[in-house]
Amino acid sequence: MAPTPTSTRSWILANYPHGVPTFSTADDNSTFKLVEQALPDLKPNQVLVKVLFLSNDPAQRGWIDPSIPAERLYIKPVELKASMAARGLAEVIASTSDRLQIGTIVQGPVGWNEYGVLGEADCTPRQPLPNGLSLTHYMGAFGIPGLTAYYGLVVVGGAKGGQKVVVSGAAGAVGNMVVQIAKNIVGCSEVIGIAGSDEKCRWVESLGADKCLNYKSPTFEDDLIKATEGFVHVYFDNVGGSILDLMLARMAKNGVVIACGSISGYNSGKPTLLKNYFQLISMRLSIRGFIASDYLSKAQEIGKLFVQALRDGKLKISDEMEQVVATNFEDVPRTWLKLFEGANTGKLITRIVE
Amino acid sequence: MAPTPTSTRSWILANYPHGVPTFSTADDNSTFKLVEQALPDLKPNQVLVKVLFLSNDPAQRGWIDPSIPAERLYIKPVELKASMAARGLAEVIASTSDRLQIGTIVQGPVGWNEYGVLGEADCTPRQPLPNGLSLTHYMGAFGIPGLTAYYGLVVVGGAKGGQKVVVSGAAGAVGNMVVQIAKNIVGCSEVIGIAGSDEKCRWVESLGADKCLNYKSPTFEDDLIKATEGFVHVYFDNVGGSILDLMLARMAKNGVVIACGSISGYNSGKPTLLKNYFQLISMRLSIRGFIASDYLSKAQEIGKLFVQALRDGKLKISDEMEQVVATNFEDVPRTWLKLFEGANTGKLITRIVE
Repeated sequence: MAPTPTSTRSWILANYPHGVPTFSTADDNSTFKLVEQALPDLKPNQVLVKVLFLSNDPAQRGWIDPSIPAERLYIKPVELKASMAARGLAEVIASTSDRLQIGTIVQGPVGWNEYGVLGEADCTPRQPLPNGLSLTHYMGAFGIPGLTAYYGLVVVGGAKGGQKVVVSGAAGAVGNMVVQIAKNIVGCSEVIGIAGSDEKCRWVESLGADKCLNYKSPTFEDDLIKATEGFVHVYFDNVGGSILDLMLARMAKNGVVIACGSISGYNSGKPTLLKNYFQLISMRLSIRGFIASDYLSKAQEIGKLFVQALRDGKLKISDEMEQVVATNFEDVPRTWLKLFEGANTGKLITRIVE
Repeated sequence: MAPTPTSTRSWILANYPHGVPTFSTADDNSTFKLVEQALPDLKPNQVLVKVLFLSNDPAQRGWIDPSIPAERLYIKPVELKASMAARGLAEVIASTSDRLQIGTIVQGPVGWNEYGVLGEADCTPRQPLPNGLSLTHYMGAFGIPGLTAYYGLVVVGGAKGGQKVVVSGAAGAVGNMVVQIAKNIVGCSEVIGIAGSDEKCRWVESLGADKCLNYKSPTFEDDLIKATEGFVHVYFDNVGGSILDLMLARMAKNGVVIACGSISGYNSGKPTLLKNYFQLISMRLSIRGFIASDYLSKAQEIGKLFVQALRDGKLKISDEMEQVVATNFEDVPRTWLKLFEGANTGKLITRIVE
């Protein structure tokens, strides 16, 4: 058995980013810096974990944006010199907790660390999933992204059977679940996805979308107008920016925009620019922001609903829906930055390799 | 008795405006042009009216904006060569209607005409108001603006007793009613107005606002932050633009923005620019557009509620709350344009004089 580590490598927040975050193993001016730091001794009811997988989420960009006051964020922002915050899956390698034995796989706020000390209360032990699915789906369909899709679409947006729905970021971790929930659980009459490549679009259509449009196509704006003839009841917005603006002109009277993310603006620092804002008024639209953590009390219930839907063939969840990138610890920020390149299909997950 | 007129002077929409609309009695290139046109003979159940008062409403700017497709407007847009659309009060001077006798004062879609022919169904005969108030209040507190204030604040926004409310355009026809309804009918704990001059602000405070801030003050942004310590549950937005953006950063968790107007952008053609859009998500805000005409079925009920509130001293409605501008017919567009100069306090009304 390997000796218990007493220190860890960590990617810390060295400087607040301007635009696209940077990283370096040496340069003190980059956003993230690789350091070696001592691990504290375990207090009662704590565990020492080895980080296996990291969840990569667009929202993490907001946690390191100094222009957003801490009181206006839904989580504590990352402090300078602290490890970059991230959720992930880890293996317990030492424990003072009766509940969490060595060898248990837990999900929790592991951060960008190789090893870390977590409180028992912050760790959720994870059991195997049906169909032999990888545990990493606890960071996707069976985790916050799936909960986000359900809470946003059904509870916040009030989507109903027979409605026409558009989803941007449709090939992402949240978006692909929105497509499937809308079409196969809620019974929406038409579900149109928007994604960033023809390949992604075909994949989204394979999940049940009636159509998926590539926003990088030169004919995208015309394609969107054509696909939304008769207008749209619910727009699940994962991207913000110019697609949100276009959609304001394509909503039916009393339509609802579910504001889940605005990734298009996260690194540009550019404001959201709405030429069609007047139509929010004239068409009696509403834009509704939400945060899935408000719905955590229902996570177990929704998890069961998804398992049943999976068994009934109403959800397609497969390991192909994740993009698990084997990553040396030195490259953890590099993998995370793929989020903002529109490069990933499904949930982007970092698997830490040695 | 004067002979019944067979023609009328009218301000027609000669060209769609770019930026601030222009007007001329002669120039064919201006937005509005003064013309003389024949009046049609009365068909059954019609009236010939002499226009006495015109209602001036920011929303009229949207009715002549060619960039907004007709299907995305809540009223039929004004066609080129047609009289500019406007509601107003008029006196019946000839009638083929059993219901509307000569001499009756009616409210209806009179347009920018000296005389006009209206169908009986388009005319609402108007009875005297309590306290000897001028009939023009049927275009203000007892008309669409009052209904807009109530519907927006109470029904769409769901404002409740004990909440903190901010209202922009607080010295306008809708805004001053929002202030009074919030403070004296709904029982909000704190009501903060925003208006365009110190004089307007003092007037808004005299109506019951706890505070009113002048957005033209160099310290406005700091003043607003200070006045909204603890954050705001409901923002009634009559102006859009940069004040909307500022308010997104001042809303409490789950706060509601009631989107009633965006006058700041009507003539500039500038898009709405939101630097704080992310806070819509992080603070779970919603922005809700609405149009008061959806609530017309309740107009009588709300009118009664206002009359009772007036008697109970919970509403201050006086002729001072209107700005009635005696206007030669040649100057009808000039008076309307005052709306966009931030010059009017209370409802801006045109009284046509000869």
